[in-house]
Amino acid sequence: MATITKKFTRAYGLDEIALVPSNRTLDMDLVDISTTIGGVKLNIPIIASAMDSVVNAKTAVELGNHGSVGVLNLEGVQTRYENPEGVLKQISSVSNAGYVELMQKIYKENEVKDDLVLKRIKEIKDSGAPCFVSSTPQNAIRFGKLAEQANADVFIVQSTVVSTHFITKDKSKNLDLSIFCKSMSIPVLVGNSTTTEVTLDLMRMGVQGIFIGIGPGAACTTRGVLAIGVPMATAILNGVAARTAYLEESGRYVPIIADGGIVNSGDICKALACGADAVMIGSPIAKASEAPGNGFHWGMATPNAVLPRGARINVGTNGTLKEILHGPSNTDDGSQNFSGAIQTALATLGAATIKEMHDVEIVIAPSLLTEGKVYQKAQSLGMYK
Amino acid sequence: MATITKKFTRAYGLDEIALVPSNRTLDMDLVDISTTIGGVKLNIPIIASAMDSVVNAKTAVELGNHGSVGVLNLEGVQTRYENPEGVLKQISSVSNAGYVELMQKIYKENEVKDDLVLKRIKEIKDSGAPCFVSSTPQNAIRFGKLAEQANADVFIVQSTVVSTHFITKDKSKNLDLSIFCKSMSIPVLVGNSTTTEVTLDLMRMGVQGIFIGIGPGAACTTRGVLAIGVPMATAILNGVAARTAYLEESGRYVPIIADGGIVNSGDICKALACGADAVMIGSPIAKASEAPGNGFHWGMATPNAVLPRGARINVGTNGTLKEILHGPSNTDDGSQNFSGAIQTALATLGAATIKEMHDVEIVIAPSLLTEGKVYQKAQSLGMYK
Amino acid sequence: MATITKKFTRAYGLDEIALVPSNRTLDMDLVDISTTIGGVKLNIPIIASAMDSVVNAKTAVELGNHGSVGVLNLEGVQTRYENPEGVLKQISSVSNAGYVELMQKIYKENEVKDDLVLKRIKEIKDSGAPCFVSSTPQNAIRFGKLAEQANADVFIVQSTVVSTHFITKDKSKNLDLSIFCKSMSIPVLVGNSTTTEVTLDLMRMGVQGIFIGIGPGAACTTRGVLAIGVPMATAILNGVAARTAYLEESGRYVPIIADGGIVNSGDICKALACGADAVMIGSPIAKASEAPGNGFHWGMATPNAVLPRGARINVGTNGTLKEILHGPSNTDDGSQNFSGAIQTALATLGAATIKEMHDVEIVIAPSLLTEGKVYQKAQSLGMYK
Amino acid sequence: MATITKKFTRAYGLDEIALVPSNRTLDMDLVDISTTIGGVKLNIPIIASAMDSVVNAKTAVELGNHGSVGVLNLEGVQTRYENPEGVLKQISSVSNAGYVELMQKIYKENEVKDDLVLKRIKEIKDSGAPCFVSSTPQNAIRFGKLAEQANADVFIVQSTVVSTHFITKDKSKNLDLSIFCKSMSIPVLVGNSTTTEVTLDLMRMGVQGIFIGIGPGAACTTRGVLAIGVPMATAILNGVAARTAYLEESGRYVPIIADGGIVNSGDICKALACGADAVMIGSPIAKASEAPGNGFHWGMATPNAVLPRGARINVGTNGTLKEILHGPSNTDDGSQNFSGAIQTALATLGAATIKEMHDVEIVIAPSLLTEGKVYQKAQSLGMYK
Repeated sequence: MATITKKFTRAYGLDEIALVPSNRTLDMDLVDISTTIGGVKLNIPIIASAMDSVVNAKTAVELGNHGSVGVLNLEGVQTRYENPEGVLKQISSVSNAGYVELMQKIYKENEVKDDLVLKRIKEIKDSGAPCFVSSTPQNAIRFGKLAEQANADVFIVQSTVVSTHFITKDKSKNLDLSIFCKSMSIPVLVGNSTTTEVTLDLMRMGVQGIFIGIGPGAACTTRGVLAIGVPMATAILNGVAARTAYLEESGRYVPIIADGGIVNSGDICKALACGADAVMIGSPIAKASEAPGNGFHWGMATPNAVLPRGARINVGTNGTLKEILHGPSNTDDGSQNFSGAIQTALATLGAATIKEMHDVEIVIAPSLLTEGKVYQKAQSLGMYK
Repeated sequence: MATITKKFTRAYGLDEIALVPSNRTLDMDLVDISTTIGGVKLNIPIIASAMDSVVNAKTAVELGNHGSVGVLNLEGVQTRYENPEGVLKQISSVSNAGYVELMQKIYKENEVKDDLVLKRIKEIKDSGAPCFVSSTPQNAIRFGKLAEQANADVFIVQSTVVSTHFITKDKSKNLDLSIFCKSMSIPVLVGNSTTTEVTLDLMRMGVQGIFIGIGPGAACTTRGVLAIGVPMATAILNGVAARTAYLEESGRYVPIIADGGIVNSGDICKALACGADAVMIGSPIAKASEAPGNGFHWGMATPNAVLPRGARINVGTNGTLKEILHGPSNTDDGSQNFSGAIQTALATLGAATIKEMHDVEIVIAPSLLTEGKVYQKAQSLGMYK
Repeated sequence: MATITKKFTRAYGLDEIALVPSNRTLDMDLVDISTTIGGVKLNIPIIASAMDSVVNAKTAVELGNHGSVGVLNLEGVQTRYENPEGVLKQISSVSNAGYVELMQKIYKENEVKDDLVLKRIKEIKDSGAPCFVSSTPQNAIRFGKLAEQANADVFIVQSTVVSTHFITKDKSKNLDLSIFCKSMSIPVLVGNSTTTEVTLDLMRMGVQGIFIGIGPGAACTTRGVLAIGVPMATAILNGVAARTAYLEESGRYVPIIADGGIVNSGDICKALACGADAVMIGSPIAKASEAPGNGFHWGMATPNAVLPRGARINVGTNGTLKEILHGPSNTDDGSQNFSGAIQTALATLGAATIKEMHDVEIVIAPSLLTEGKVYQKAQSLGMYK
Repeated sequence: MATITKKFTRAYGLDEIALVPSNRTLDMDLVDISTTIGGVKLNIPIIASAMDSVVNAKTAVELGNHGSVGVLNLEGVQTRYENPEGVLKQISSVSNAGYVELMQKIYKENEVKDDLVLKRIKEIKDSGAPCFVSSTPQNAIRFGKLAEQANADVFIVQSTVVSTHFITKDKSKNLDLSIFCKSMSIPVLVGNSTTTEVTLDLMRMGVQGIFIGIGPGAACTTRGVLAIGVPMATAILNGVAARTAYLEESGRYVPIIADGGIVNSGDICKALACGADAVMIGSPIAKASEAPGNGFHWGMATPNAVLPRGARINVGTNGTLKEILHGPSNTDDGSQNFSGAIQTALATLGAATIKEMHDVEIVIAPSLLTEGKVYQKAQSLGMYK
């Protein structure tokens, strides 16, 4: 008999879930939302993405001062241009039609310079802020050494999809993560993964933190162009399964960081409740008045000469970094005072720490666009008068 | 083996269900839609929310005259200002940009005054209308005593999420609901809860009515900011499970009141069919020409200095309180003649009382926005010409 | 233990299903789409709704000439006004604000007149077209007698929700359908039902056709106002279960007619594939240039003095009755040439008759509005330029 | 007891799935995206649809040069008009109101001419490009012979729904596919099918490739008008079940081609991961500056005199054929550089060939329009300011 053998399983996004209060609540004083990533204690479980529109040395310092950390991308404009401000201004003022071409030109014109890498890291370290830097797997050995040399705190190897078995004819292209982790004197974090198997393999290779998330980000078109993607809630659960299994087999707790599609404080709370130890966010930080993107946000795959991905979005500016991270909030849409929202959520849900937050009950509660809601909303917007 | 241990269960909202006729219908004369809450018989199962835009002493009196009841919030502008009309006018005329700041200023400038609390309660009681008043748990002891002193009928302790185990270093902050209920000579109602466990605990503590609902309201951004929320249909079912279990163990029937996200008569009917004894509504009453909000509606968490929640919505004015509650309706969208709609629904579904309504069959019938419906609707609105 | 006892079951709408071809197709010549309802053979399985905007005597005649049939509502404007054209023009030209009031006035001013009932039936019968007439249960005995007297072919007792057990103190209000069916010399059809139990009961009472459908219609706000409704695909399956069971116990085949929410030829085909013997449609016929509604369509519950339901929709005019029923079509949206579409669907699906169409395979295939589709559509509409 | 006997099963569309990375990735050099259809090796698994707006002899040649193939429809304007450019210009410039009438006139005025069929095939063959031609089953014998005579490489018999049992009184209308396949000296491909049974039957009749897909296409209104359609992901799985069963029983591997509703590179990748050996696409190719449709795209069922289907869509022009197929892409929406995207997807997913792509893990991950997403999107579009 001819039968279908391929099975699809259902995966859930953060948009589809909600958190359920228990019988316990906590006084805000008793809530601790700190987390430790790569041996660095962060007062708030938020890491700013390694993107040109989000983190330069100056914002990395400010993020550190606010108890967060920003990852400096060692292959972006900051390490290609002595004074990248002019180039960033061009990116935010070019027309949509000219955007991709401009990005390709900017990257082609200037290679990354070792002295600029060292200089940027020094700028961050000199301030006393934690310094997280990142590169692609292709350039990890070169930039890993520079990061060590400059005393960066954490080195991140990040690509759209991390592979534990990269097949190539050119062995020089192949980064052996086990050897790389052992060779590095500072913690190595790797991403992005979405499955239990890969995440567990990475932990066994000595990786000290894994970024979870492929496809769901606001400035990421991986899912449209390549069809690749795993909704975030399920991806985190997969990562948690690996973390638990690895903790049992090794006694070592390797944090996982949810990265992609997290746009407001509610999303952060959901990611933590699914089991994330921290979140990595881009567009919410790109909205800060201090962000290098000047109110714009774009992906790092755009300069790809052949298959550009990652749209440029006009995210605007909605407040200072301090307002976004610690408030006081002057909006009610979850785009400001992330630490206050996370603390309030933990207190309301009876979780004293992020680890206790992992145990919060979750329901599938899609806020689908039903007819009724559309009419209500449209009426309130004056659309259907 | 590494496996996923966290399970999500599906929760349903009122938007996702519909009511199924049985083989019985009733003459309207035989339908009784009264309900008893806190020992007070209400001719219609509708309670107006404890919000500044919905209930002042004058509307509480009118609501009582119409067989409903309005809850006066003892911590809002009515008990801070001798003549709150000016302040309410400011709220309804300030720009969106200035709204949050204004609210914080209004609350900071004027503390609640005991004599105004007593005066407002007296205004309601003098009319013969039932008087329900509310406060937060933090101030329950102070306002509970004042409410008793002024002969209020029911005292409500309401917070976003009610806790039966509030953990705090400062014991003075902790309200022991068991002791509080025993200490009060008038019935105490508490909210909001969404789970069977908490609801059952509250009943065992002596609470005489529980508000069910966290996160679904139109002027509430709890779900967006904090990710906390349980869709209403499932939340009510959870509450019913507690009510039934407690009735069996104690012989006492404790009513549950669905509170949040109920915007038209269809929603009210669905909440009753899920098992609610009454509903608490805000925005539909804020649309009354007599409502204190002057056509605007806002949440009570807005003045929060650090994490404002609760948007201000321009709901407009769609009729008198009488038209909204008892008709005749001059619209066909379920925003008027709630009592007529509830009576018609019960008659059509063959339910003689609200308790019989609890047994009506329910189907999951999401009125999702399918392509076809969008085109139809858009065409009828002249959008796709 | 406290547990949830109430269960929700999933019901499906026509929007959520699609029809699957088999291994057989048919030449169009071999397809017969006729159906027999109330002993009257219809060349096409389409009945026009008993609504003022859809059927008057003149369109009933034309519908009959086209192999369909129109139901004349004996309680609408046609039997209240000698010359209803003026009143119909008023309805189509009044403002939205004045609409409900106008409808209530039109109905209050003029009672139904027996001589007009007889005259309208005669106008239809004189043409040779089949004459189906309808009334509410309250007036069934009076209008049933008049219909018999005037030689109508079929008498329809229709209300939003048909009850087999109507509970009332006033016995005179109660229509015993068993006695009524026996007392009538012409077939009696009844509606609307959505459950197997009620449909089976009605068949046992001698009803010769059942209208299936509560809540899904375009000009019907029953679901919004009263929350009552069963998605059509599931409602038809329920009716089919009754029809099959009754056929087995009695040897009598009682047709079921899907009524509500059917707006294009695809919907008709889906209803037939679910098991309907015919469909009743309102808005698609109201779009005919000959329709009495002058490009508008409205429900019959609107004149209800207390709880008006049924919006007035500007449906426009998209062709002649002949084009809508038999083409040729000059559009490609399924709003014209219903008979051609039904024949093509049956031929394509390998069904020679409507009864064979009942066996076609159906999949759940929601054409949900996914992000991708919205962008595509919006782009093709020039919305996102 | 009366019970429901008809069961609905859930079918999935490409919009509802996403692809999951494994633990393996590949260097791009190691990825081979070629496929063999009808004995012809294609460097990229893309076939351009047999539609007047997509393929004429000139684009067929260019598609061949780019490693793809275009199917020439032998019954469209190319074989009716010596110089079809004028007619194509009329189609792209007529008003929407006049479109259907014009199409019917164009087809009625000029019959297909044998010498033009031979001439068009020669134009393609002379260039060295592969030549795929198609006709309806009704005319397969006539055009099949002409195709053989002119040395076409593959002959395609395509209708909306392919039948293995066509019932007709007029035996001359009936194409016996077994006999036809045997009679033809060149490979015969057939479509469209969606079920395992029909696909398996066709393979047993000697068909050398099956087109899978009914109802999902952008310029196809089959689902709206006739309600017929099977979401593509499930349809492909059905076809794969037949391919596997037939391979086991016969040792012959018959490729299946996903046809319909595929609009960007992500969709192509999903179809391949479901098990397709190639995809057939229309609208994405109609956007090429070389496409005969001049920026418009329309279905081939439109000229149907009685029941026109297939809307004309203004798809615009987004690049050259080379840019669409091989890049470099200057957009990030998956509408360009299909080969680059497919290669990148395979490399990222660790699949070295299209056959390995068939084994990629798939999750159900609907990118449903949730409230949050709509607001985000709308804000980024400036709609809700």
